[in-house]
Amino acid sequence: MAPPTSSSPRKLEIVNPVPADIDIAQSVDPLPIASIAQDLGALARPGSPQEPSRWILRRGGRDYADAAGRGQIDHHCWARASHGGSSRKEGSLARTDISSRSSLARTWLLKLAKLQSVVVVACLRQPSQGPTFGIKGGAAGGGYSQVIPMEEFNLHLTGDIHAITAANNLLSAAIDARMFHENTQSDKALFNRLCPADKEGKRSFAKVMYSRLKKLGIEKTDPNQLTAEETKKFARLDIDPATITWKRVMDVNDRFLRKITVGQGPEEKGMTRETGFDISVASEIMAVLALTTSLADMRSRLGKMVIGSSKAGDPVTADDLGVGGALTVLMKDAIHPTLMQTLEGTPVFVHAGPFANIAHGNSSIVADQIALKLVGPEGFVITEAGFGADIGCEKFMDIKCRYSGLRPQCAVIVATVRALKMHGGGPAVVAGKPLDAAYKSENLELVRAGCSNLVKHIENTRSYGVNVVVGINVFATDTEAELAAVKSIALDAGAFDAVLCTHYASGGEGAVELGYAVQRACERHSAPLKFLYPLEVSIKEKIEAIAKFYGADNVEYESEAEAKIELYTRQGFSQLPICMAKTQYSFSHDPSLKGVPKGFTLPIRDVRASVGAGFIYPLVGAMSTMPGLPTRPCFYDIDLDIESGKVLGLS
Amino acid sequence: MAPPTSSSPRKLEIVNPVPADIDIAQSVDPLPIASIAQDLGALARPGSPQEPSRWILRRGGRDYADAAGRGQIDHHCWARASHGGSSRKEGSLARTDISSRSSLARTWLLKLAKLQSVVVVACLRQPSQGPTFGIKGGAAGGGYSQVIPMEEFNLHLTGDIHAITAANNLLSAAIDARMFHENTQSDKALFNRLCPADKEGKRSFAKVMYSRLKKLGIEKTDPNQLTAEETKKFARLDIDPATITWKRVMDVNDRFLRKITVGQGPEEKGMTRETGFDISVASEIMAVLALTTSLADMRSRLGKMVIGSSKAGDPVTADDLGVGGALTVLMKDAIHPTLMQTLEGTPVFVHAGPFANIAHGNSSIVADQIALKLVGPEGFVITEAGFGADIGCEKFMDIKCRYSGLRPQCAVIVATVRALKMHGGGPAVVAGKPLDAAYKSENLELVRAGCSNLVKHIENTRSYGVNVVVGINVFATDTEAELAAVKSIALDAGAFDAVLCTHYASGGEGAVELGYAVQRACERHSAPLKFLYPLEVSIKEKIEAIAKFYGADNVEYESEAEAKIELYTRQGFSQLPICMAKTQYSFSHDPSLKGVPKGFTLPIRDVRASVGAGFIYPLVGAMSTMPGLPTRPCFYDIDLDIESGKVLGLS
Repeated sequence: MAPPTSSSPRKLEIVNPVPADIDIAQSVDPLPIASIAQDLGALARPGSPQEPSRWILRRGGRDYADAAGRGQIDHHCWARASHGGSSRKEGSLARTDISSRSSLARTWLLKLAKLQSVVVVACLRQPSQGPTFGIKGGAAGGGYSQVIPMEEFNLHLTGDIHAITAANNLLSAAIDARMFHENTQSDKALFNRLCPADKEGKRSFAKVMYSRLKKLGIEKTDPNQLTAEETKKFARLDIDPATITWKRVMDVNDRFLRKITVGQGPEEKGMTRETGFDISVASEIMAVLALTTSLADMRSRLGKMVIGSSKAGDPVTADDLGVGGALTVLMKDAIHPTLMQTLEGTPVFVHAGPFANIAHGNSSIVADQIALKLVGPEGFVITEAGFGADIGCEKFMDIKCRYSGLRPQCAVIVATVRALKMHGGGPAVVAGKPLDAAYKSENLELVRAGCSNLVKHIENTRSYGVNVVVGINVFATDTEAELAAVKSIALDAGAFDAVLCTHYASGGEGAVELGYAVQRACERHSAPLKFLYPLEVSIKEKIEAIAKFYGADNVEYESEAEAKIELYTRQGFSQLPICMAKTQYSFSHDPSLKGVPKGFTLPIRDVRASVGAGFIYPLVGAMSTMPGLPTRPCFYDIDLDIESGKVLGLS
Repeated sequence: MAPPTSSSPRKLEIVNPVPADIDIAQSVDPLPIASIAQDLGALARPGSPQEPSRWILRRGGRDYADAAGRGQIDHHCWARASHGGSSRKEGSLARTDISSRSSLARTWLLKLAKLQSVVVVACLRQPSQGPTFGIKGGAAGGGYSQVIPMEEFNLHLTGDIHAITAANNLLSAAIDARMFHENTQSDKALFNRLCPADKEGKRSFAKVMYSRLKKLGIEKTDPNQLTAEETKKFARLDIDPATITWKRVMDVNDRFLRKITVGQGPEEKGMTRETGFDISVASEIMAVLALTTSLADMRSRLGKMVIGSSKAGDPVTADDLGVGGALTVLMKDAIHPTLMQTLEGTPVFVHAGPFANIAHGNSSIVADQIALKLVGPEGFVITEAGFGADIGCEKFMDIKCRYSGLRPQCAVIVATVRALKMHGGGPAVVAGKPLDAAYKSENLELVRAGCSNLVKHIENTRSYGVNVVVGINVFATDTEAELAAVKSIALDAGAFDAVLCTHYASGGEGAVELGYAVQRACERHSAPLKFLYPLEVSIKEKIEAIAKFYGADNVEYESEAEAKIELYTRQGFSQLPICMAKTQYSFSHDPSLKGVPKGFTLPIRDVRASVGAGFIYPLVGAMSTMPGLPTRPCFYDIDLDIESGKVLGLS
């Protein structure tokens, strides 16, 4: 198969001032997605549907290869890409984007993909639908740097988040139903229902039951051979309701579901329980999707997700409940990344979108893997990491790179004069409130003070052994002196380069310099990746290594946290990497500590485990996992134009 | 455009005994869906994408017309069909299927579509994912009469039910958040947040706010011109929490969500509220989707859905909450039916799936409309109505036909010897328990006694002025004498014809006779449709007309019901048709009353209104709107084969 070539980019017609995001997004007809796929070499070789080097694009759950093999191209806004066996040499370069408080991180990312001499694929997270209708709006980028169709990107898209919601909540229903049935049935009745006799009176175990039998050390394959004691151990999960960490999820900003009591119907016989809903992207299943490396790996991770403990203190898993296979079936299409495009026709893989506070907040490993194969040895893959060096980068390196085996050659940190002024001591910036004058006129003192924060991001990121390029997103109110100060301080701090970017206002042209800087940084890359901690040390040692990385002097564990660390260590999960659930507004646990906080004590309130996804997550302070709606949510402006069918008011 | 021709049907390789549904479903490669669409004339005319007579098939939210116009066909399992302007003459025949307790109704339906000399389209409901993982399993048909790919059909499919869940729950979140904000803010603060000043200090109303202003009789367009009194009326919905009928939904069998308390988090300041979840297919938005006739109609229905009353007793709508437009945006793709196929390649539209107990349980009007256009004047459309003459037929005629303006020329009632024996006094049939011997050997007495039930279904259906064909689904244990008895009694009762069907075991061949009988019944059809009641009479008069149709002597209203009838009449909703929420197991309210119950009093426990969908629904006894999971749900058997990617264990 010939190496792929990038399609000639679309020339944008730039308007000034920049129109509303949705107006720009709708002003362009997307290119046929199959032509983008074809240019990427992502379609089957004609006439060889079974050839092992083929690339498969899927839509609607079926192979696209058949059509593609006949060279047909149709008009589509998305396609799914899936792993195929391939003999093609992989691209040797992966990149991470580490945003410094900038909501334009996504925007920027898309422009980097416009390097025109090589094949570039951007890997982005799929945004939650909750904020789209709440305060924040969508996440397709902004101005002349967007993923299109932005309506699809911001709404259901291919339904992956809906699949996660369905799977997560099937497991929730299974937990409460199982406790109910265990509470109302004898051991024998339970066992007889779990392993019913068929027409010939023969009993058998379902395939999924063997993982529980194995865990219990029972090697029998005939249910009739189990002793009474084994029958009881097998049939009774004996879940301790107080230990259940698995919550229901919904992809809606519904604050009244944060804490609820379930089971108040008369049929549930008084078995009420306090629990709550998280937003869907906070589901462990989302974290699994983002960290999985294959279908077999996903099946295994989903089955071993721990929902709580038995009264004896043993972990209870999805496979113990018999539902790991069904969860995999619900997720079978979601494992395939979705191929979309920027306004200029650059390929973008959209896949997974784990919550960046309580989960690892990075785009998916599967998308990176496929993209790396597709771009070929000279190509570039740009992948997104949510939040700064403390959260996005640390989790990218110590969690995602550990599971993927992939190594970045360059990290991009996005900075804005506005954010740096805030870190330098500028007044608080509140969404929906007018911006303070300090952010609209030159204030070199604030900028320079705030650069201490940028310097710490650069230093921390470089400590992993990667080159750092700083992308400075230029705003109309920034002055030349302010921008020059940021650039000079970044270079002094050891950044490989620091480049001004204007892609929001001017499209791909505005990020070409950044692209070249990244290309050079990758070419000069040589150091191996240095993890922050080895996996073998204790949970506390790992937490303390990360706390030091943040700048903390000490770590303080509340009693809940102490108990959980003891529990997870006893249950055998201490070898997992650590995923800090921490605010993104400060290197510390306190969002109000700007700049470079020092000498603080990091409080660990509680510790949870996402065993299926593969990490332990300490809660550093309070993290909301279900946003709320303001008095006037975004949805007031959203409607459909009945004549044209166009979406109005999405931002 | 030339009239469409049906593609040559696929020849099935029949195996005996009949293998598992999923094995049959996976034994056949689906035909390229575009070739089915092309044969139906459902693709654009080459080179004329803007021609008003084009038919549009959509996938992934984009027009398929472009590709289709170039005559390209690819390999796909589904496509979306949407209304296009068309000059083609419509098919003049619509049909309804009215099942008599038979779970094979869907199966049968698919085979009728195999009449080979004319174009036939079947319109089916999309099944809920809840039962797929619970007790019942999927609903793609069975044996050699199935919709394929059955995995897609039974799982997320095109995500329409997920879209309904998302829209339903966005409205729920909006209700609780609005009450919260009204409870914590002054009139002025509320108003200022709802109509914030822009950078120039100018305030304006969002478009959706004009429906509320109109309702309040305020004709001003400048927010600054509202009086203090008007400001308060506009900004304060003043919802009475006790009147809220809008519940959250989830497409999972989760019994512990039937009754819950929300708002128990500390940030919700003690504003707890008792509420509950229904299964998603019970959402009013599902009923809207099934009864809507166009995008504009759907926008209007979604906006006028009533969620409860203000403390002053006025109805509060989705548009009052500002969310009607956003709901429409979430549903914009779901309005397009999904084109699938039977095992033999017959086109099937899958669309909507309203709960047949509390909603009207019929397949969608939009699918019927599109199908009728596509089959042309000589063609046939078979559309599904959930449950028997008391529920499926009555709601089809008095609700769906009223909104669609379409008129059926024939109704098919599906009967089985087994179900009739049960109505004749046979022992109870319980899912998962072995079948009593009475159902496995000849018992003419039971069959003849049970036929009283079939006769009542025939008589009730004929009272609407349509010809009735009885399809008798043959089971291996039925004897010739039993089948002959059913046939003879049906004909004596006035059925146009009664035909034995063996499509489960033998595919399309097994339903050809039934197809011809339906064709003849339609040709002989002449009577106009006679509704059971006029819309203008009172709610009670309508309820009583339906009760009489069931065979009741009297209707008894509990006090809740009386109060609601009074409320809805005062609110101006008494002109809506009635949608009885009643068991499907008996003509009466009591599932144990088999055969033809007489002289009973129909109890009306409560009355609700689905104003957006367009009906009032009296609750006849207790109706569960959220199923539960058994001790060993179907999900124990469901898994993915990692090597082949095939779904295992779906039934």
